[in-house]
Amino acid sequence: MVGSGAAGMTAASSAREQDAQAEITVVTEDYHISYSPCAIPFVIDGTIKDFESIVMHTPEFYKNQRNIEVLTQTKATSVDSERKACVLSNGTTKTYDALIIATGGSVMVPPVEGVRLPGVFSVRSIDDGEAIQAAVRNVSSVVIAGAGVIGLEMAIALKKLGKHVIVVEMLPQVVPRILDADMAEVVQRHCESIGLRFILKTPLGRVIGKERVEEVMAGSEKLASDMVILATGVRPNLELPNQLGLEIGALGGVRVSPSLQPYRKGRPVKDIYLAGDVIMCDSAAINGPTMSQLGSSAVRQGKVAGINAAGGHALYPGSLGSWISQLGDLQAAGTGLSRGLADYYGVSIAEGKAVGLTRARYYPGGRQITVKLMAERSSRRIVGAQIVGGEEVTGRINWLSGAILARVAVEEFVASYENAYCPPTSMVKDVVVSAAEDLQKRL
Amino acid sequence: MVGSGAAGMTAASSAREQDAQAEITVVTEDYHISYSPCAIPFVIDGTIKDFESIVMHTPEFYKNQRNIEVLTQTKATSVDSERKACVLSNGTTKTYDALIIATGGSVMVPPVEGVRLPGVFSVRSIDDGEAIQAAVRNVSSVVIAGAGVIGLEMAIALKKLGKHVIVVEMLPQVVPRILDADMAEVVQRHCESIGLRFILKTPLGRVIGKERVEEVMAGSEKLASDMVILATGVRPNLELPNQLGLEIGALGGVRVSPSLQPYRKGRPVKDIYLAGDVIMCDSAAINGPTMSQLGSSAVRQGKVAGINAAGGHALYPGSLGSWISQLGDLQAAGTGLSRGLADYYGVSIAEGKAVGLTRARYYPGGRQITVKLMAERSSRRIVGAQIVGGEEVTGRINWLSGAILARVAVEEFVASYENAYCPPTSMVKDVVVSAAEDLQKRL
Repeated sequence: MVGSGAAGMTAASSAREQDAQAEITVVTEDYHISYSPCAIPFVIDGTIKDFESIVMHTPEFYKNQRNIEVLTQTKATSVDSERKACVLSNGTTKTYDALIIATGGSVMVPPVEGVRLPGVFSVRSIDDGEAIQAAVRNVSSVVIAGAGVIGLEMAIALKKLGKHVIVVEMLPQVVPRILDADMAEVVQRHCESIGLRFILKTPLGRVIGKERVEEVMAGSEKLASDMVILATGVRPNLELPNQLGLEIGALGGVRVSPSLQPYRKGRPVKDIYLAGDVIMCDSAAINGPTMSQLGSSAVRQGKVAGINAAGGHALYPGSLGSWISQLGDLQAAGTGLSRGLADYYGVSIAEGKAVGLTRARYYPGGRQITVKLMAERSSRRIVGAQIVGGEEVTGRINWLSGAILARVAVEEFVASYENAYCPPTSMVKDVVVSAAEDLQKRL
Repeated sequence: MVGSGAAGMTAASSAREQDAQAEITVVTEDYHISYSPCAIPFVIDGTIKDFESIVMHTPEFYKNQRNIEVLTQTKATSVDSERKACVLSNGTTKTYDALIIATGGSVMVPPVEGVRLPGVFSVRSIDDGEAIQAAVRNVSSVVIAGAGVIGLEMAIALKKLGKHVIVVEMLPQVVPRILDADMAEVVQRHCESIGLRFILKTPLGRVIGKERVEEVMAGSEKLASDMVILATGVRPNLELPNQLGLEIGALGGVRVSPSLQPYRKGRPVKDIYLAGDVIMCDSAAINGPTMSQLGSSAVRQGKVAGINAAGGHALYPGSLGSWISQLGDLQAAGTGLSRGLADYYGVSIAEGKAVGLTRARYYPGGRQITVKLMAERSSRRIVGAQIVGGEEVTGRINWLSGAILARVAVEEFVASYENAYCPPTSMVKDVVVSAAEDLQKRL
């Protein structure tokens, strides 16, 4: 087992559940294991007490409770898949019956001058988080490169700490790719209302400074800045896969079968399984590949890889890439296809939308919620959904994920999918249903 | 159209959408129309400002905006289905091309002495609500008969106003029939923690008083009480259906086809449609009948009845009876079969359960949430779900309703149904998924 994130540690635990006797070793370059990187912004802003509390289990726990050996700060430098042996940075060689590669990804560092200067951080590991936390006290202006979910969450966290924050994004909208422009506008307006400034359609330029960051270029604009956060996306860590000659998919991750086995020269490779940010898997919304790169997907993939590696049989049915983000007071979420993804897959879609409240109109405290649904024109199936709202978004997006998985046509959703109702928790006709009715009219 | 609740008024509006020209008349005994009775407890406790604000539209609105005539405080005394004519209490006779009966239900009044004394109220209409509101100032002790959802919501509302409240329930648990005993216990403990007292396994006895309620018998116990609230269930209003000779189903409502037409001597009746609390419809969880009696079902049935009455074609696919209730600080919800309903249908089920949090373990403010799932042993399909938790229950119960409608087997749910995750809104593996995993082990 290589990698100690959500995929790796879940794989180890589910291999143990599958086989009580097997010898299980996890090799990881990290010091901290078994934590959720998604929590980092909320530690930075002080909502979560400290980084220690986001660590679920220690290596000692795995050793004592689950009989799983975790070798931290150890690198798997190479694998010989013929001899089934893995050479480690501590000089030893470990043989295996089955190997799981869950090496995750690394933040893409934009190819600009000065990007290695002190004061430039990424947000990936607890080490990154601790470095930001240590540095942030002496910082007054921050530039965030990338207006994706993690970029926005970090921007809001730093704004909460009283910093002056500017977000620079190459594309013309926030949360590109997974949120459509009209929904992204709602998010952007909210972020602006709490004091964030955006520079869109502009890649991060040169980072300027002597000993550390002093200024950042965004197009022709020069921004004073003591701190730069790179939230520019995650690229799979392919060192081992490349060394093993595994096939890399068009989206940049290792291509895997539903059993999560990789391919070499077109054929599945025996006794190797992959899980987490490093793989390109099947989309569950449409016939095509996807990069899920979410903690929730990693856990599911880890479980399948662990079962299979320990001699069991499980399949990963593909991912809808369901995601959610808490952006200050606002939640944004999506599942299945967005317009951008539909274009990528060449799927012709219709869109429906509804704006409503999370409670009955007259019940105090209700928050605005906007629901957008997408259907494939040919099949009339719901293939994507996005929600932006003040509360109660999680369950609703999962509801829609389920409808996509069930391959439900819009008219069937409208006719059959009832919503539970009471005035303090929804409108009598939930906004999700209203969005489906709107979509039905537009198909 | 007879009846002006959620079913009747939705039917009128959807008939108008279907046919812009049709003459549409709604006949109703009520003065207020188009409101949600579910909101009454929250007006009583002061959360919602007043009864006016829960009225969605007035008769004038329907007249002016939708060209729908609403005759309030008017009774349809009889219908001649041969001549297609409806005799009204105002002395006129109205002919029709199609008739929709949405006469709703009335609170079952227990057959005990004194139950008509002043100080005894039901909770069905705004008139009831206003009467309670007017009387409550001079009240210190209340007995609620019936520990169903509306009984508990009223009990909590009156507790909030500082009253001494005792709930008397015939059955051995709160929220009987739709919530299983183990889940009901969580609800009961919560209600007791905020000061409600329960007397279970005890029907309401004699109501004692000279001019108004003074005492109430519960078994052999005599309770001092200035107010009694009857929350003893709703029985369909069958005056017109009986007069028309329509077939009444085993559960007490009018039996209807998926087009919502009634039967007479085994045959569907032309040009009459029914919707709302008055009907017995198909269950969407299992092959069998059900009484849904929910505002959310009424709206959906009203839509189908309205379309069909106006010459269109729509089918009502049956109801899961998805419900939710806000009980002080706690939400309780269910969908599909409960253990009681499964017994009624003769379905052998397995149960799975998980207790977790609504946010990541380390994220502050997370509330406990308990999810219970039921699968039919023969098909391994999920057929029922119940949730009790502090927040974010609505979307999750709808998610599970969708899974029941999609006829998903437990292992498919575990393998495919992913949840969106971020620390402020869920655990990385949502409690719903953990409950499904538990269920899978028990099948």
